[in-house]
Amino acid sequence: MSEEKKKAVVLLSGGIDSTTTLAISKKDGFEPCAMSFNYGQRHVYELEAARTICEFMEVKHRIELNIDLRKIGGSALTDNIAVPKDRPEREISGEIPVTYVPARNTIFLSYALGWAEVLGAHDMYIGVNSVDYSGYPDCRPEFIEAFESLANLATKAGVEGHHITIHTPLINMTKAEIIKTGTDLGVNYALTFSCYDPTPDGFACGRCDSCILRLKGFSQAGLKDPIKYMKS
Amino acid sequence: MSEEKKKAVVLLSGGIDSTTTLAISKKDGFEPCAMSFNYGQRHVYELEAARTICEFMEVKHRIELNIDLRKIGGSALTDNIAVPKDRPEREISGEIPVTYVPARNTIFLSYALGWAEVLGAHDMYIGVNSVDYSGYPDCRPEFIEAFESLANLATKAGVEGHHITIHTPLINMTKAEIIKTGTDLGVNYALTFSCYDPTPDGFACGRCDSCILRLKGFSQAGLKDPIKYMKS
Repeated sequence: MSEEKKKAVVLLSGGIDSTTTLAISKKDGFEPCAMSFNYGQRHVYELEAARTICEFMEVKHRIELNIDLRKIGGSALTDNIAVPKDRPEREISGEIPVTYVPARNTIFLSYALGWAEVLGAHDMYIGVNSVDYSGYPDCRPEFIEAFESLANLATKAGVEGHHITIHTPLINMTKAEIIKTGTDLGVNYALTFSCYDPTPDGFACGRCDSCILRLKGFSQAGLKDPIKYMKS
Repeated sequence: MSEEKKKAVVLLSGGIDSTTTLAISKKDGFEPCAMSFNYGQRHVYELEAARTICEFMEVKHRIELNIDLRKIGGSALTDNIAVPKDRPEREISGEIPVTYVPARNTIFLSYALGWAEVLGAHDMYIGVNSVDYSGYPDCRPEFIEAFESLANLATKAGVEGHHITIHTPLINMTKAEIIKTGTDLGVNYALTFSCYDPTPDGFACGRCDSCILRLKGFSQAGLKDPIKYMKS
């Protein structure tokens, strides 16, 4: 007798955190439904990574939405603002950086909530992290709790008495712990992409905040990062 | 000495409620920044109405975003589901109808929050209404309160100690009160559009939930609805 698995919407950017989160949602027994966004980010490698990861991990339900964050502006990831390089780590985690995209996680979770409602799913996964979180306000546990409260008031499912849960399995992990967890679950990190400012041929820069945190994570996990970095 | 007005993001669909809300935001002393969405709704008349209203009301800041709600589906307003007609009023307000778009107001407010952050605005207006609210869960006061809590946790502005306020001036008004309020503020309701299912040449059907509530509102306000309805 095969029982149909419960669906969960998983936000998948194609980076280390969201890919590990996807693997965890499968381990938790859900049928993951992956949602990715083309939000006017500087490059398409992230989205390509998300597609490949879904194939590799046999994700049956996948949706990719085009959203217009560039029109709103206000971030180095969507505007022509320089991405900071070679920042010492205490600076990376100490303030809200120019790579912060206004209300991005709020917007992403809102779409995930809409899709969950259509799928009849009451579970959502997001790979936010408050340890190595780069200073984004919308990665903090209190933000997630507030969104979960909102989700249960905003939807038909909530009105009908189902409880919508936002799972944040990485919230208290260091990058090294995330990488170890994913490795144990068989995540192929060669398929993931993290760099904010890659070369035109898709090599990671190795110097932006995202690369610095990634490289530190692999180093502390005692593992080698399998992706390609540009020669310096 | 002229003082620069504080900006407020106003969600503007082009219907009666949002247009009245725009007028109220001006009366409240704000410089309104109007945000509209092309979300795959069945027709473009709403968006055209929003554009004309902004010209007529001399709104300087306006943004129109294309968002992909059709890909998510689940609503008569974005899918090929029939729009209900000629429903008695008690039915209109008694349940969540097929015209409900999953998480729509959550998504709209999330974008408004992102734009507010970029504009440096700490005020947002939305024309939700819990009296003639057609049974949408995301029009209730408790939903708005939850979003306001979220907004103050989600953003740089919130982290820096500014308070973000979501104004819902219509929340306790009947449709008739809304129309009287707007009329007193000089709103030209001939420019607004409410119908869920207009004719190809832009006449309102007069029979969908939205038309029924609109016509009742004008009737109870003792005013004539200035828009064109199809001949029955």
